[in-house]
Amino acid sequence: MLAQIAQKASRSAGAKIYLREVERVIGALMASSEFWGVITLSCLPVNTVAEIIKELIAEGLVVQKDHSLELTPKGKGEAQVREISPLADGACKACAGRGLDLSAFNKLLNTFREMVQGRPKAIFEYDQGYVTPETTVARVALLAAKGDIKGKDLLIIGDDDLVSVAAALSRLPRRVAVLEIDPRLIRFIQALADSHHLEIEIYRQDVRKRLPAELCRQFDTFLTDPPETIDALELFLTRGLAALKGPCCAGYFGLTFAESSLSKWLALQQILAAKLKVAVTDIIHNFNEYVNWDYLLESVRKDLSFVQVNPLSNWYRSSMYRVETVEGSYWENLDREDLALYPD
Amino acid sequence: MLAQIAQKASRSAGAKIYLREVERVIGALMASSEFWGVITLSCLPVNTVAEIIKELIAEGLVVQKDHSLELTPKGKGEAQVREISPLADGACKACAGRGLDLSAFNKLLNTFREMVQGRPKAIFEYDQGYVTPETTVARVALLAAKGDIKGKDLLIIGDDDLVSVAAALSRLPRRVAVLEIDPRLIRFIQALADSHHLEIEIYRQDVRKRLPAELCRQFDTFLTDPPETIDALELFLTRGLAALKGPCCAGYFGLTFAESSLSKWLALQQILAAKLKVAVTDIIHNFNEYVNWDYLLESVRKDLSFVQVNPLSNWYRSSMYRVETVEGSYWENLDREDLALYPD
Repeated sequence: MLAQIAQKASRSAGAKIYLREVERVIGALMASSEFWGVITLSCLPVNTVAEIIKELIAEGLVVQKDHSLELTPKGKGEAQVREISPLADGACKACAGRGLDLSAFNKLLNTFREMVQGRPKAIFEYDQGYVTPETTVARVALLAAKGDIKGKDLLIIGDDDLVSVAAALSRLPRRVAVLEIDPRLIRFIQALADSHHLEIEIYRQDVRKRLPAELCRQFDTFLTDPPETIDALELFLTRGLAALKGPCCAGYFGLTFAESSLSKWLALQQILAAKLKVAVTDIIHNFNEYVNWDYLLESVRKDLSFVQVNPLSNWYRSSMYRVETVEGSYWENLDREDLALYPD
Repeated sequence: MLAQIAQKASRSAGAKIYLREVERVIGALMASSEFWGVITLSCLPVNTVAEIIKELIAEGLVVQKDHSLELTPKGKGEAQVREISPLADGACKACAGRGLDLSAFNKLLNTFREMVQGRPKAIFEYDQGYVTPETTVARVALLAAKGDIKGKDLLIIGDDDLVSVAAALSRLPRRVAVLEIDPRLIRFIQALADSHHLEIEIYRQDVRKRLPAELCRQFDTFLTDPPETIDALELFLTRGLAALKGPCCAGYFGLTFAESSLSKWLALQQILAAKLKVAVTDIIHNFNEYVNWDYLLESVRKDLSFVQVNPLSNWYRSSMYRVETVEGSYWENLDREDLALYPD
C-alpha cells in the first residue's frame, strides 16, 4: 500500500518519492498534527511532504480535520504493521541540539533581543526570513568556539539575521563588514551602530555583482544564508570565498531539508568539493531556527488546504555548514580577468 | 617571527604549514601544557603540531619542562602582539557537545559499561582504538534520533567499539550484524550475546575481501570507524554502501583532524560526492571520544621528547559523519562483475 502511495506521489510530484519517505511522513504525523510540524520532523522538502500527505489522504490513511492532520485507524494499522514509530529529534534540551555552551553569551542575547525590536519585516522581494535572536547569538558563539571571530575580520553577506550587530556587540571581531541590498536593513543596522557605538562597515551591494575590489582577500571569516537554488548558493559562496584572505579561513552558511532535497545537498557538496575546493568541517543539524514570516502562505502552493494553514510555531530550520579553505581553494582558480580586479 | 616558524616547520614537515596553524597551536598551548591536549584543542594533525612546537621551542617561544610545554615570556609576548587567545571548544556541558539528549539511554549505558569490562585491549595489528562506553551509547542514540535504528537492519563493520552489543541491548534494531577480523573481539561479542540473549550475527571478515553476497543490499544502516588513509576510508565505505538496500539508507563513520589534514578531508569529500555519490547530512565535531590505548608511544615519532609523553587524559576525538544514499549512489555504479555477485 505504501509503495503504491510512493508511486502515485512520485507521478504527481514529477520526481521520485520513496517508500521510506512515506514512512517518515507517517512517523512525523504520529508526533505532529500540523503540516509544518511534519516538515520539521521529517526533514523532507515541502513539496515531497505535500504530495505524500495528499496521497495518504486519498488512500484513507490520513484525514484532515479543520487545520489538523491525523492518522485514521487504517493509517495507524499500517504504521503498526510496518513498525513505524513517532519521529522525535532527540535533541539536547540544554543547548537545543546545537552542542554549544551559550552561558557566556546570555548578556549579549538579552541586549541583542531588545535592540532588534522593530526590525524590518521579512519580505518576499529579497527572499528573507530571519532567524531567532537566540540563533543569531548562537552563531556568534559558534564562530567563537571555532576561533573564527576573536580578533578576526568578519564579512556578513546578506544580513536580515543581524549577525553584524550581534558580532559587533560582542566586541570579539577586529572588523565587521556587511553586504546588504535591502535599504531598510541598511538603515536599521546603521541606526543600531550609531546608537550603540558599534563599528560596522555597511556596503549596499547586490550579490549578483562582483565583490568590490577593496573587499577581496580581506577577511578571515564570512557568513551568509543564501536562497536555496544551486545557482544562488554557488553565487553567494563564491562571493564569500573571494573575500577570504587565503587558506585556513572559514565560511558559514545554512542549508535546509525543507527547500533542498538530498540530491540538491549532494549537488552542492559536489560543487564545494570539486569546484570551490573547500573542506566542510561541520554540518550541525537544525542549528538555525527561523521566525515565521508573513508571506509564507502566499508563496506556497494553494491547491492543498492542509498546506494553506498558518504554522503554529517556528517550523523552518536549517543545518549550519562550516567550510574551511585549503591550498588550492577557490580564489586560486579565479581567471585572469577576475585577478586583475582582485590585486593582492 | 611566526611566519618564519611556519616556513621552517613546513620545510621540516615536507608539507605546507600556515601561520594561522602556528597561531592555533599557540592558542592551544595557552590552554593546555600537554602535547596531546594541544592536539585535541588545535584540531590539527599530530605531525603538524609536532613540527610547529619543535620550531616554537627552537625560537624560544615555548619551553619544555619535564612533561609540560609552556609559553616563555617571549612566547606570551608574541601571543599578545598577535592577539591570540586561549583555545576552548565551547561545548555544551550537558551533552558534551554532541547535541543529543541521552537521558533515555542512561540505563543502557550503565548495563553496557558493566558488560564491557574485560574487553580485549586495543592492539596495533588491527589499528584499534575503541571509544568510551558513553560514546558507543551516544552512537545508538544518534541513530535513534535519525530514524536509522528502530526496526532497522544494522551492519557494523569493525567493532572494537562494541556498537553491535549496545545496539542489540537497546532492543531497537530489527537485525544486528557485525563484520570483524579480530578473533578476540569475535569471541567477546559472541560471549556477551550468549550471556545476555542478544541476537547478533557475527561474520569473520577481512574488509579487503568483497562483502559476502548474502549481506549485499540487506541493510538500512551501516556504521564503521575506519583507519584514516584515503584508501582505507574508501574501502570501508564501499563495503558499507554495498550492504545498503537502496536510496534513503544511512552510513556513519568517524574522521579525525589528528590523523587527517584538511586536504585529506577535502579529498575524502570529493570521493563521497563525485564517486560514491552519497550526501553528507551531518558532521558532528568531537562526537567520538576514544580511550587511550597502550601502544600510542610506540607508534608515534620518537625523535621529539615532548611527543614521547603519555597522555594525561583521553585526547583522541573524531567527528561523526552521517551519509545518506540517494538515487544514483554507489551501488548503482557497481560494474558487471560485481553485480553478478550481488543479485537483487
